[in-house]
Amino acid sequence: MKRIFLRTAYDGTAYCGSQIQPELPTVEGTLANVLSELSDENVLLTGASRTDAGVHAYGNVYVFDTKLSIPPDRFKYAINTKLPPDIRVVESMEVPADFHPRHSVINKTYEYHIDDGFIELPFKERYSAHVRQKLDIEAMNEAAVLFIGEHDFTSFCSAKTEKEDHVRIIYNLNVTASSPSVYDNRDIVISITGNGFLYNMVRIIAGTLAEVGKGKIKPAEISEILSARDRTKAGPTLPPNGLFLLKIRYEDFEK
Amino acid sequence: MKRIFLRTAYDGTAYCGSQIQPELPTVEGTLANVLSELSDENVLLTGASRTDAGVHAYGNVYVFDTKLSIPPDRFKYAINTKLPPDIRVVESMEVPADFHPRHSVINKTYEYHIDDGFIELPFKERYSAHVRQKLDIEAMNEAAVLFIGEHDFTSFCSAKTEKEDHVRIIYNLNVTASSPSVYDNRDIVISITGNGFLYNMVRIIAGTLAEVGKGKIKPAEISEILSARDRTKAGPTLPPNGLFLLKIRYEDFEK
Repeated sequence: MKRIFLRTAYDGTAYCGSQIQPELPTVEGTLANVLSELSDENVLLTGASRTDAGVHAYGNVYVFDTKLSIPPDRFKYAINTKLPPDIRVVESMEVPADFHPRHSVINKTYEYHIDDGFIELPFKERYSAHVRQKLDIEAMNEAAVLFIGEHDFTSFCSAKTEKEDHVRIIYNLNVTASSPSVYDNRDIVISITGNGFLYNMVRIIAGTLAEVGKGKIKPAEISEILSARDRTKAGPTLPPNGLFLLKIRYEDFEK
Repeated sequence: MKRIFLRTAYDGTAYCGSQIQPELPTVEGTLANVLSELSDENVLLTGASRTDAGVHAYGNVYVFDTKLSIPPDRFKYAINTKLPPDIRVVESMEVPADFHPRHSVINKTYEYHIDDGFIELPFKERYSAHVRQKLDIEAMNEAAVLFIGEHDFTSFCSAKTEKEDHVRIIYNLNVTASSPSVYDNRDIVISITGNGFLYNMVRIIAGTLAEVGKGKIKPAEISEILSARDRTKAGPTLPPNGLFLLKIRYEDFEK
């Protein structure tokens, strides 16, 4: 028996989230079908991170046990030939039998993309939120640094969260904007790295930074919103399509 | 009666090309349906440039005549509210009654996108061709400059072309590559501006430059391929999904 680690990239548009659900298209369900077909038995996967419907990933992680004799780094090819093009295994390797994808995580990085063009371009629709107002990137970065460090993120998580401990560490948070090419559309990227994230946390931080970019919240108010521990003090939850789970880093095999 | 000019951006994935065809989804057909609904009569559009199934545009141009009293620059809003999100009118204005979108064109600019990552990412699939080999961008640019100027492009057009005159002027052709972000995937952009393009010309030039990038064609061979006036001497026609019609520039109202 070998334990195989899969790093997967997917376009979440067509899926009801990453986690398996009966009768619904999910990333995990699609991977499980392919693996069950390959190994002629019912394969169970364990995922590192639940992503909501419409959320994308460059590197979500799944682990499974198998008796298949395929060399571990060749699994990606075997699986990719049977996957639809909106899911790709980008890395496959063997990990120790006690490896769990939700343990020994050093940090996770997400990106949230916003397009502030006057008219939303068709190419951006799947992959960014649209804000019809030019955002002040400098003000957004002034606000962003106030999130860095250890904080109670109760104001920045959905009331639906099941987690009791709302303290997380943000290692890095910054905002960049590409130069507009054909029209005034910019790709504004909010990049965030932390030791863990609460339900909807990145989308609420992005929604709050967008309000700062519009001038509706002042950068200095971020500290007050954090201390308030009250979800109603922060900005709105931006839609799922702008969110990308970029990378999950693990102890041992990550530099 | 007013003549209205529409600059349109579209994701060509779901359409059987730009030009209207009975019973098939097309960009022109979709626009014509919306305009006919708005004006309660059968509206005919004249397009500037035919794009094939799967080809995208940031700025293809359509013109139509109307008795509607909507201010010309407001047409874009009226139309966009009724269009699917994969087509957007980005500019609308009144033009003289004798304006024709295929006349008085100064030049057109296209972009062709290639991803040379080891594994194609799901986000690139609709918008670039995938080449599983690292391309030599410097060699591609050495080849690109040899296309600039007035040439007979018989070697670089589909044998299906109906045009007899194959002489065109290329004003600019260059190749850039973005830095890879999460994996080794780069966005390689072939940007080309000319006074006119033959059938499949950009896709064949892109296919030939990709062969140069792989080392299969030497940059200096471009001049021989041009002189040969023989389609079989050039590289393959790359797929439609990497192609974007960026902009059409007109006399009079373009700087």
